[in-house]
Amino acid sequence: MIRFFAQPQDISDGVIQLTTEDAEHIRALRLRPAEQFVVCDSAGTDYICHLGIRGTNTAKISVTSTSLGEPSVMCKVYIAFAKGDRLDYAVQKSVELGAGEIVLFPSERCVSVPGDMSKKTARLQKIALETAKQCGRGRIPEVTAISSFSSAIELASCAALPLFIYEREENRHLKQVLENSGDFHTASIVTGPEGGFESHEAAFALSLGMISVTLGPRILRCETAPVIVLAALMFHTGNL
Amino acid sequence: MIRFFAQPQDISDGVIQLTTEDAEHIRALRLRPAEQFVVCDSAGTDYICHLGIRGTNTAKISVTSTSLGEPSVMCKVYIAFAKGDRLDYAVQKSVELGAGEIVLFPSERCVSVPGDMSKKTARLQKIALETAKQCGRGRIPEVTAISSFSSAIELASCAALPLFIYEREENRHLKQVLENSGDFHTASIVTGPEGGFESHEAAFALSLGMISVTLGPRILRCETAPVIVLAALMFHTGNL
Repeated sequence: MIRFFAQPQDISDGVIQLTTEDAEHIRALRLRPAEQFVVCDSAGTDYICHLGIRGTNTAKISVTSTSLGEPSVMCKVYIAFAKGDRLDYAVQKSVELGAGEIVLFPSERCVSVPGDMSKKTARLQKIALETAKQCGRGRIPEVTAISSFSSAIELASCAALPLFIYEREENRHLKQVLENSGDFHTASIVTGPEGGFESHEAAFALSLGMISVTLGPRILRCETAPVIVLAALMFHTGNL
Repeated sequence: MIRFFAQPQDISDGVIQLTTEDAEHIRALRLRPAEQFVVCDSAGTDYICHLGIRGTNTAKISVTSTSLGEPSVMCKVYIAFAKGDRLDYAVQKSVELGAGEIVLFPSERCVSVPGDMSKKTARLQKIALETAKQCGRGRIPEVTAISSFSSAIELASCAALPLFIYEREENRHLKQVLENSGDFHTASIVTGPEGGFESHEAAFALSLGMISVTLGPRILRCETAPVIVLAALMFHTGNL
Protein backbone atom coordinates (compact mmCIF):
# COMPACT_ATOMS: atom_id res chain seq x y z
CA MET A 1 0.00 0.00 0.00
CA ILE A 2 1.24 3.51 -0.75
CA ARG A 3 2.59 5.14 2.37
CA PHE A 4 2.86 8.75 3.55
CA PHE A 5 4.26 10.22 6.72
CA ALA A 6 2.54 12.97 8.69
CA GLN A 7 3.20 14.48 12.11
CA PRO A 8 0.96 13.57 15.08
CA GLN A 9 -0.30 17.20 15.29
CA ASP A 10 -1.47 17.01 11.67
CA ILE A 11 -3.97 14.29 12.55
CA SER A 12 -7.19 15.20 14.35
CA ASP A 13 -10.87 14.33 14.23
CA GLY A 14 -10.36 11.81 11.47
CA VAL A 15 -8.77 14.29 9.11
CA ILE A 16 -5.15 14.32 8.09
CA GLN A 17 -3.38 17.42 6.92
CA LEU A 18 -0.80 16.22 4.38
CA THR A 19 2.10 18.28 3.10
CA THR A 20 1.70 19.97 -0.26
CA GLU A 21 4.28 17.56 -1.69
CA ASP A 22 2.31 14.50 -0.56
CA ALA A 23 -0.98 16.01 -1.76
CA GLU A 24 0.61 16.52 -5.17
CA HIS A 25 1.84 12.93 -5.10
CA ILE A 26 -1.73 11.73 -4.39
CA ARG A 27 -3.01 13.80 -7.31
CA ALA A 28 -0.31 12.37 -9.58
CA LEU A 29 -1.23 8.83 -8.53
CA ARG A 30 -4.90 9.49 -9.52
CA LEU A 31 -6.11 7.54 -6.49
CA ARG A 32 -9.85 6.76 -6.58
CA PRO A 33 -12.08 7.27 -3.53
CA ALA A 34 -12.26 3.53 -2.79
CA GLU A 35 -8.50 2.98 -2.88
CA GLN A 36 -6.66 2.61 0.38
CA PHE A 37 -3.35 4.07 1.40
CA VAL A 38 -1.44 4.42 4.65
CA VAL A 39 -0.61 7.58 6.54
CA CYS A 40 1.79 7.03 9.40
CA ASP A 41 1.96 9.55 12.24
CA SER A 42 5.77 9.13 12.56
CA ALA A 43 5.28 7.92 16.12
CA GLY A 44 4.54 4.28 15.35
CA THR A 45 0.84 4.33 14.39
CA ASP A 46 -0.46 3.64 10.89
CA TYR A 47 -3.75 5.09 9.66
CA ILE A 48 -5.31 3.21 6.77
CA CYS A 49 -7.09 5.88 4.74
CA HIS A 50 -9.60 6.32 1.97
CA LEU A 51 -9.36 9.44 -0.05
CA GLY A 52 -12.40 11.55 0.88
CA ILE A 53 -12.30 14.98 -0.69
CA ARG A 54 -9.32 15.35 -2.93
CA GLY A 55 -8.53 18.93 -2.05
CA THR A 56 -5.16 20.59 -2.24
CA ASN A 57 -3.87 19.10 0.98
CA THR A 58 -6.51 17.13 2.88
CA ALA A 59 -7.63 13.52 3.00
CA LYS A 60 -10.33 11.87 5.13
CA ILE A 61 -9.46 8.93 7.35
CA SER A 62 -11.80 5.96 7.27
CA VAL A 63 -10.05 3.18 9.21
CA THR A 64 -7.40 3.11 11.93
CA SER A 65 -4.95 0.34 12.71
CA THR A 66 -1.70 0.09 14.62
CA SER A 67 1.62 -0.25 12.87
CA LEU A 68 3.56 -3.51 12.92
CA GLY A 69 6.63 -2.01 11.29
CA GLU A 70 8.52 -0.94 14.41
CA PRO A 71 10.86 -3.30 16.25
CA SER A 72 10.66 -3.83 20.03
CA VAL A 73 14.25 -2.62 20.51
CA MET A 74 15.28 1.01 20.04
CA CYS A 75 18.68 0.58 18.38
CA LYS A 76 20.74 3.62 17.40
CA VAL A 77 23.43 3.07 14.81
CA TYR A 78 26.59 5.23 15.03
CA ILE A 79 28.53 5.15 11.77
CA ALA A 80 31.90 6.85 11.22
CA PHE A 81 31.99 9.18 8.21
CA ALA A 82 32.93 7.34 5.02
CA LYS A 83 33.45 8.48 1.47
CA GLY A 84 31.44 7.91 -1.69
CA ASP A 85 28.05 6.28 -1.53
CA ARG A 86 28.92 4.08 1.45
CA LEU A 87 26.80 6.11 3.85
CA ASP A 88 23.86 6.06 1.43
CA TYR A 89 23.97 2.31 1.51
CA ALA A 90 24.45 2.05 5.28
CA VAL A 91 21.54 4.43 5.95
CA GLN A 92 19.18 2.71 3.52
CA LYS A 93 19.85 -0.77 4.88
CA SER A 94 19.78 0.38 8.52
CA VAL A 95 16.32 1.89 7.99
CA GLU A 96 15.09 -1.30 6.30
CA LEU A 97 16.28 -3.31 9.28
CA GLY A 98 14.59 -1.10 11.86
CA ALA A 99 17.27 1.29 13.17
CA GLY A 100 15.81 3.81 15.61
CA GLU A 101 18.23 6.58 14.69
CA ILE A 102 21.40 6.96 12.65
CA VAL A 103 24.24 9.11 13.95
CA LEU A 104 27.34 10.01 11.92
CA PHE A 105 30.57 10.92 13.67
CA PRO A 106 34.25 11.57 12.91
CA SER A 107 37.06 9.20 13.83
CA GLU A 108 40.82 9.62 13.39
CA ARG A 109 41.19 7.37 10.38
CA CYS A 110 38.17 8.78 8.51
CA VAL A 111 39.22 9.47 4.93
CA SER A 112 36.74 12.32 4.58
CA VAL A 113 34.70 14.34 7.05
CA PRO A 114 32.30 16.75 5.31
CA GLY A 115 32.78 20.45 5.95
CA ASP A 116 29.03 21.07 5.82
CA MET A 117 27.48 18.30 7.89
CA SER A 118 23.93 19.62 7.59
CA LYS A 119 24.04 19.21 3.80
CA LYS A 120 25.22 15.63 4.17
CA THR A 121 22.60 14.72 6.77
CA ALA A 122 19.78 16.39 4.78
CA ARG A 123 20.62 14.17 1.82
CA LEU A 124 20.77 11.04 4.00
CA GLN A 125 17.55 12.03 5.80
CA LYS A 126 15.83 11.99 2.40
CA ILE A 127 17.11 8.46 1.79
CA ALA A 128 15.82 7.46 5.25
CA LEU A 129 12.37 8.90 4.44
CA GLU A 130 12.09 7.15 1.08
CA THR A 131 13.27 3.86 2.57
CA ALA A 132 10.87 4.13 5.53
CA LYS A 133 8.00 4.58 3.05
CA GLN A 134 9.05 1.60 0.93
CA CYS A 135 9.72 -0.89 3.69
CA GLY A 136 6.75 -0.14 5.93
CA ARG A 137 8.33 1.55 8.92
CA GLY A 138 6.09 3.16 11.54
CA ARG A 139 8.40 6.17 11.92
CA ILE A 140 11.20 7.87 10.02
CA PRO A 141 14.54 7.34 11.75
CA GLU A 142 16.38 10.60 12.25
CA VAL A 143 19.81 11.01 10.65
CA THR A 144 22.08 13.33 12.63
CA ALA A 145 25.77 14.17 12.73
CA ILE A 146 27.97 14.80 15.75
CA SER A 147 31.18 16.76 15.28
CA SER A 148 33.31 15.01 17.91
CA PHE A 149 34.21 11.38 18.44
CA SER A 150 34.03 11.60 22.22
CA SER A 151 30.52 13.14 22.23
CA ALA A 152 29.30 10.36 19.97
CA ILE A 153 30.74 7.68 22.25
CA GLU A 154 29.30 9.40 25.34
CA LEU A 155 25.83 9.27 23.78
CA ALA A 156 26.22 5.72 22.49
CA SER A 157 27.38 4.44 25.86
CA CYS A 158 24.02 5.40 27.45
CA ALA A 159 22.18 2.48 25.79
CA ALA A 160 21.42 -0.66 27.81
CA LEU A 161 23.50 -2.66 25.31
CA PRO A 162 26.30 -0.44 23.90
CA LEU A 163 28.26 -2.34 21.22
CA PHE A 164 31.61 -1.09 19.94
CA ILE A 165 32.62 -3.04 16.82
CA TYR A 166 36.39 -3.34 16.89
CA GLU A 167 38.47 -5.40 14.49
CA ARG A 168 41.30 -5.84 16.98
CA GLU A 169 38.97 -7.39 19.55
CA GLU A 170 39.88 -11.07 19.35
CA ASN A 171 37.74 -12.91 21.83
CA ARG A 172 34.34 -11.34 22.35
CA HIS A 173 31.96 -12.45 19.61
CA LEU A 174 28.60 -10.84 18.91
CA LYS A 175 26.65 -14.06 19.55
CA GLN A 176 28.18 -14.52 22.98
CA VAL A 177 27.48 -10.86 23.91
CA LEU A 178 23.85 -10.97 22.75
CA GLU A 179 23.17 -14.31 24.42
CA ASN A 180 24.55 -13.05 27.72
CA SER A 181 22.83 -9.68 27.64
CA GLY A 182 19.38 -10.74 28.86
CA ASP A 183 16.44 -8.51 27.93
CA PHE A 184 17.24 -5.02 26.69
CA HIS A 185 15.11 -2.34 25.09
CA THR A 186 17.79 0.10 23.97
CA ALA A 187 21.00 -0.68 22.11
CA SER A 188 23.71 1.19 20.24
CA ILE A 189 26.05 -0.04 17.54
CA VAL A 190 29.24 1.94 16.89
CA THR A 191 31.26 1.11 13.76
CA GLY A 192 34.47 2.66 12.45
CA PRO A 193 35.84 4.05 9.20
CA GLU A 194 37.59 2.19 6.34
CA GLY A 195 40.83 1.91 8.31
CA GLY A 196 39.24 0.91 11.62
CA PHE A 197 39.49 2.63 15.00
CA GLU A 198 42.72 3.79 16.65
CA SER A 199 43.52 1.85 19.83
CA HIS A 200 43.10 4.96 22.02
CA GLU A 201 39.62 5.48 20.55
CA ALA A 202 38.70 1.92 21.52
CA ALA A 203 40.19 2.47 24.99
CA PHE A 204 38.02 5.58 25.45
CA ALA A 205 34.86 3.71 24.40
CA LEU A 206 35.65 0.84 26.75
CA SER A 207 36.33 3.26 29.59
CA LEU A 208 32.74 4.49 29.21
CA GLY A 209 31.39 0.96 29.47
CA MET A 210 31.00 0.11 25.81
CA ILE A 211 31.44 -3.56 24.91
CA SER A 212 34.03 -4.25 22.21
CA VAL A 213 32.98 -6.97 19.80
CA THR A 214 34.62 -8.82 16.90
CA LEU A 215 32.72 -9.84 13.79
CA GLY A 216 34.92 -12.86 13.15
CA PRO A 217 37.77 -13.66 10.77
CA ARG A 218 36.41 -11.99 7.63
CA ILE A 219 36.90 -8.26 7.38
CA LEU A 220 33.60 -6.54 6.67
CA ARG A 221 33.60 -3.27 4.75
CA CYS A 222 32.79 -0.16 6.77
CA GLU A 223 29.31 0.15 5.25
CA THR A 224 28.55 -3.55 5.73
CA ALA A 225 29.44 -3.88 9.42
CA PRO A 226 26.67 -1.70 10.97
CA VAL A 227 24.01 -3.35 8.82
CA ILE A 228 25.13 -6.87 9.69
CA VAL A 229 25.29 -6.17 13.43
CA LEU A 230 21.83 -4.61 13.26
CA ALA A 231 20.55 -7.65 11.36
CA ALA A 232 21.98 -10.01 13.99
CA LEU A 233 20.52 -7.91 16.80
CA MET A 234 17.06 -7.81 15.19
CA PHE A 235 17.28 -11.54 14.50
CA HIS A 236 18.29 -12.28 18.09
CA THR A 237 15.51 -10.15 19.59
CA GLY A 238 12.80 -11.64 17.35
CA ASN A 239 12.41 -8.52 15.20
CA LEU A 240 13.23 -10.15 11.87
CA MET B 1 48.03 -8.34 4.21
CA ILE B 2 47.80 -8.32 0.41
CA ARG B 3 46.04 -11.41 -0.83
CA PHE B 4 46.23 -13.42 -4.05
CA PHE B 5 44.38 -16.50 -5.14
CA ALA B 6 46.05 -19.45 -6.88
CA GLN B 7 44.82 -22.93 -7.77
CA PRO B 8 45.93 -25.98 -5.70
CA GLN B 9 47.81 -27.40 -8.71
CA ASP B 10 49.84 -24.18 -9.00
CA ILE B 11 51.38 -24.81 -5.58
CA SER B 12 54.10 -27.43 -5.23
CA ASP B 13 57.42 -27.87 -3.42
CA GLY B 14 57.15 -24.49 -1.75
CA VAL B 15 56.82 -22.61 -5.02
CA ILE B 16 53.69 -20.88 -6.21
CA GLN B 17 52.99 -20.22 -9.84
CA LEU B 18 51.02 -16.97 -9.93
CA THR B 19 49.05 -15.71 -12.91
CA THR B 20 50.68 -13.09 -15.11
CA GLU B 21 48.13 -10.57 -13.82
CA ASP B 22 49.05 -11.22 -10.18
CA ALA B 23 52.79 -11.18 -10.97
CA GLU B 24 52.29 -7.78 -12.59
CA HIS B 25 50.37 -6.63 -9.53
CA ILE B 26 53.29 -7.71 -7.30
CA ARG B 27 55.70 -5.80 -9.50
CA ALA B 28 53.49 -2.71 -9.38
CA LEU B 29 53.34 -2.92 -5.57
CA ARG B 30 57.19 -2.94 -5.43
CA LEU B 31 57.11 -5.52 -2.63
CA ARG B 32 60.48 -6.01 -0.91
CA PRO B 33 61.85 -9.50 -0.17
CA ALA B 34 61.06 -9.22 3.56
CA GLU B 35 57.44 -8.19 3.06
CA GLN B 36 54.76 -10.79 3.59
CA PHE B 37 51.67 -11.43 1.57
CA VAL B 38 49.07 -14.20 1.42
CA VAL B 39 48.46 -16.65 -1.39
CA CYS B 40 45.33 -18.70 -0.93
CA ASP B 41 44.93 -22.01 -2.78
CA SER B 42 41.17 -21.38 -3.33
CA ALA B 43 40.41 -24.53 -1.34
CA GLY B 44 40.56 -23.01 2.13
CA THR B 45 44.30 -22.88 2.88
CA ASP B 46 46.31 -19.67 3.17
CA TYR B 47 50.05 -19.57 2.46
CA ILE B 48 51.89 -16.67 4.02
CA CYS B 49 54.66 -15.86 1.55
CA HIS B 50 57.86 -13.88 1.21
CA LEU B 51 58.80 -12.78 -2.23
CA GLY B 52 61.79 -14.90 -3.21
CA ILE B 53 62.82 -14.36 -6.79
CA ARG B 54 60.72 -11.68 -8.38
CA GLY B 55 60.47 -13.33 -11.80
CA THR B 56 57.69 -12.87 -14.30
CA ASN B 57 55.30 -15.20 -12.55
CA THR B 58 56.89 -17.01 -9.60
CA ALA B 59 57.18 -16.40 -5.84
CA LYS B 60 58.81 -18.55 -3.16
CA ILE B 61 56.81 -19.70 -0.14
CA SER B 62 58.42 -19.29 3.22
CA VAL B 63 55.68 -20.02 5.81
CA THR B 64 52.45 -21.97 5.71
CA SER B 65 49.36 -21.44 7.84
CA THR B 66 45.74 -22.50 7.59
CA SER B 67 43.03 -20.06 6.66
CA LEU B 68 40.48 -18.84 9.19
CA GLY B 69 38.34 -17.07 6.63
CA GLU B 70 35.95 -19.88 5.72
CA PRO B 71 32.74 -20.51 7.67
CA SER B 72 31.80 -23.97 8.96
CA VAL B 73 28.56 -23.97 6.95
CA MET B 74 28.48 -24.24 3.15
CA CYS B 75 25.66 -21.85 2.32
CA LYS B 76 24.64 -21.29 -1.30
CA VAL B 77 22.69 -18.14 -2.02
CA TYR B 78 20.13 -18.24 -4.87
CA ILE B 79 19.16 -14.73 -5.98
CA ALA B 80 16.50 -13.94 -8.58
CA PHE B 81 17.72 -11.69 -11.41
CA ALA B 82 17.32 -8.00 -10.56
CA LYS B 83 18.02 -4.85 -12.46
CA GLY B 84 20.66 -2.13 -12.04
CA ASP B 85 23.45 -2.61 -9.54
CA ARG B 86 21.36 -4.63 -7.11
CA LEU B 87 23.11 -7.88 -7.98
CA ASP B 88 26.53 -6.21 -7.61
CA TYR B 89 25.61 -5.30 -4.09
CA ALA B 90 24.08 -8.68 -3.23
CA VAL B 91 27.13 -10.55 -4.55
CA GLN B 92 29.65 -8.31 -2.78
CA LYS B 93 27.92 -8.55 0.60
CA SER B 94 27.25 -12.30 0.25
CA VAL B 95 30.96 -12.92 -0.35
CA GLU B 96 31.89 -10.75 2.66
CA LEU B 97 29.54 -12.80 4.82
CA GLY B 98 30.91 -16.16 3.73
CA ALA B 99 28.52 -17.42 1.00
CA GLY B 100 29.77 -20.69 -0.49
CA GLU B 101 28.34 -20.06 -3.95
CA ILE B 102 26.01 -17.54 -5.57
CA VAL B 103 23.44 -18.72 -8.10
CA LEU B 104 21.27 -16.39 -10.19
CA PHE B 105 17.95 -17.59 -11.57
CA PRO B 106 14.83 -16.24 -13.33
CA SER B 107 11.45 -15.90 -11.68
CA GLU B 108 8.12 -14.80 -13.17
CA ARG B 109 8.12 -11.31 -11.74
CA CYS B 110 11.76 -10.55 -12.62
CA VAL B 111 11.89 -7.14 -14.27
CA SER B 112 14.92 -8.07 -16.37
CA VAL B 113 16.61 -11.35 -17.20
CA PRO B 114 19.83 -10.82 -19.18
CA GLY B 115 19.99 -12.28 -22.68
CA ASP B 116 23.67 -13.16 -22.27
CA MET B 117 23.97 -14.71 -18.82
CA SER B 118 27.68 -15.53 -19.18
CA LYS B 119 28.52 -11.84 -19.58
CA LYS B 120 26.55 -11.01 -16.44
CA THR B 121 28.11 -13.78 -14.36
CA ALA B 122 31.64 -12.93 -15.57
CA ARG B 123 31.18 -9.39 -14.27
CA LEU B 124 29.80 -10.59 -10.94
CA GLN B 125 32.54 -13.22 -10.66
CA LYS B 126 35.07 -10.39 -10.84
CA ILE B 127 33.28 -8.61 -7.97
CA ALA B 128 33.35 -11.88 -6.00
CA LEU B 129 37.11 -12.24 -6.58
CA GLU B 130 37.90 -8.67 -5.53
CA THR B 131 35.71 -8.97 -2.44
CA ALA B 132 37.22 -12.34 -1.47
CA LYS B 133 40.68 -10.74 -1.62
CA GLN B 134 39.64 -7.75 0.48
CA CYS B 135 37.74 -9.56 3.19
CA GLY B 136 40.08 -12.49 3.75
CA ARG B 137 38.13 -15.41 2.31
CA GLY B 138 39.86 -18.78 1.92
CA ARG B 139 38.22 -19.42 -1.45
CA ILE B 140 36.48 -17.48 -4.18
CA PRO B 141 32.76 -18.25 -4.24
CA GLU B 142 31.60 -19.18 -7.72
CA VAL B 143 28.89 -17.05 -9.35
CA THR B 144 26.72 -19.03 -11.75
CA ALA B 145 23.39 -18.55 -13.53
CA ILE B 146 20.65 -21.09 -14.12
CA SER B 147 18.18 -20.48 -16.92
CA SER B 148 15.09 -22.05 -15.33
CA PHE B 149 13.34 -21.42 -12.04
CA SER B 150 12.53 -25.08 -11.46
CA SER B 151 16.15 -26.22 -11.96
CA ALA B 152 17.32 -23.62 -9.45
CA ILE B 153 14.79 -24.79 -6.86
CA GLU B 154 15.66 -28.45 -7.49
CA LEU B 155 19.31 -27.67 -6.75
CA ALA B 156 18.56 -25.45 -3.75
CA SER B 157 16.28 -28.06 -2.18
CA CYS B 158 19.21 -30.50 -1.86
CA ALA B 159 20.76 -28.57 1.06
CA ALA B 160 20.27 -29.83 4.61
CA LEU B 161 18.58 -26.50 5.43
CA PRO B 162 16.79 -25.17 2.32
CA LEU B 163 15.27 -21.74 3.03
CA PHE B 164 12.73 -20.14 0.70
CA ILE B 165 12.20 -16.49 1.64
CA TYR B 166 8.58 -15.68 0.93
CA GLU B 167 6.84 -12.43 1.82
CA ARG B 168 3.41 -14.06 1.97
CA GLU B 169 4.57 -16.57 4.58
CA GLU B 170 3.00 -15.25 7.76
CA ASN B 171 3.96 -17.56 10.58
CA ARG B 172 7.33 -19.17 10.11
CA HIS B 173 10.08 -16.81 11.26
CA LEU B 174 13.77 -17.27 10.49
CA LYS B 175 14.75 -17.47 14.17
CA GLN B 176 12.29 -20.26 14.88
CA VAL B 177 13.47 -22.22 11.82
CA LEU B 178 17.17 -21.88 12.66
CA GLU B 179 16.66 -22.73 16.32
CA ASN B 180 14.72 -25.88 15.41
CA SER B 181 17.08 -27.02 12.69
CA GLY B 182 19.76 -28.65 14.86
CA ASP B 183 23.26 -28.96 13.37
CA PHE B 184 23.57 -28.54 9.63
CA HIS B 185 26.57 -28.18 7.36
CA THR B 186 24.87 -27.19 4.12
CA ALA B 187 22.19 -24.55 3.62
CA SER B 188 20.56 -22.70 0.76
CA ILE B 189 18.83 -19.35 0.73
CA VAL B 190 16.42 -18.56 -2.12
CA THR B 191 15.20 -14.98 -2.50
CA GLY B 192 12.88 -13.45 -5.08
CA PRO B 193 12.74 -10.46 -7.42
CA GLU B 194 11.48 -6.92 -6.71
CA GLY B 195 7.83 -8.01 -6.92
CA GLY B 196 8.24 -11.21 -4.88
CA PHE B 197 7.44 -14.78 -5.90
CA GLU B 198 4.23 -15.95 -7.55
CA SER B 199 2.20 -18.28 -5.29
CA HIS B 200 2.65 -21.23 -7.67
CA GLU B 201 6.43 -20.72 -7.53
CA ALA B 202 6.28 -20.91 -3.74
CA ALA B 203 4.05 -24.00 -3.96
CA PHE B 204 6.64 -25.69 -6.21
CA ALA B 205 9.49 -24.88 -3.81
CA LEU B 206 7.51 -26.20 -0.86
CA SER B 207 6.61 -29.38 -2.76
CA LEU B 208 10.35 -30.09 -3.02
CA GLY B 209 10.81 -29.72 0.72
CA MET B 210 11.97 -26.10 0.90
CA ILE B 211 11.02 -24.21 4.07
CA SER B 212 9.17 -20.95 3.48
CA VAL B 213 10.26 -18.19 5.84
CA THR B 214 9.08 -14.64 6.57
CA LEU B 215 11.49 -11.83 7.42
CA GLY B 216 8.96 -9.99 9.57
CA PRO B 217 6.77 -6.93 9.07
CA ARG B 218 9.25 -4.69 7.24
CA ILE B 219 9.64 -5.35 3.53
CA LEU B 220 13.30 -5.81 2.67
CA ARG B 221 14.52 -4.85 -0.80
CA CYS B 222 15.37 -7.74 -3.11
CA GLU B 223 19.12 -7.11 -2.77
CA THR B 224 18.92 -6.78 1.03
CA ALA B 225 17.02 -9.97 1.83
CA PRO B 226 19.66 -12.58 0.82
CA VAL B 227 22.39 -10.70 2.69
CA ILE B 228 20.36 -10.37 5.88
CA VAL B 229 19.34 -14.03 5.90
CA LEU B 230 22.98 -15.02 5.33
CA ALA B 231 24.06 -12.71 8.17
CA ALA B 232 21.50 -14.28 10.53
CA LEU B 233 22.55 -17.78 9.51
CA MET B 234 26.26 -17.03 10.03
CA PHE B 235 25.45 -15.36 13.35
CA HIS B 236 23.38 -18.33 14.49
CA THR B 237 26.03 -20.89 13.53
CA GLY B 238 28.87 -18.98 15.22
CA ASN B 239 30.48 -17.83 11.97
CA LEU B 240 30.26 -14.10 12.63
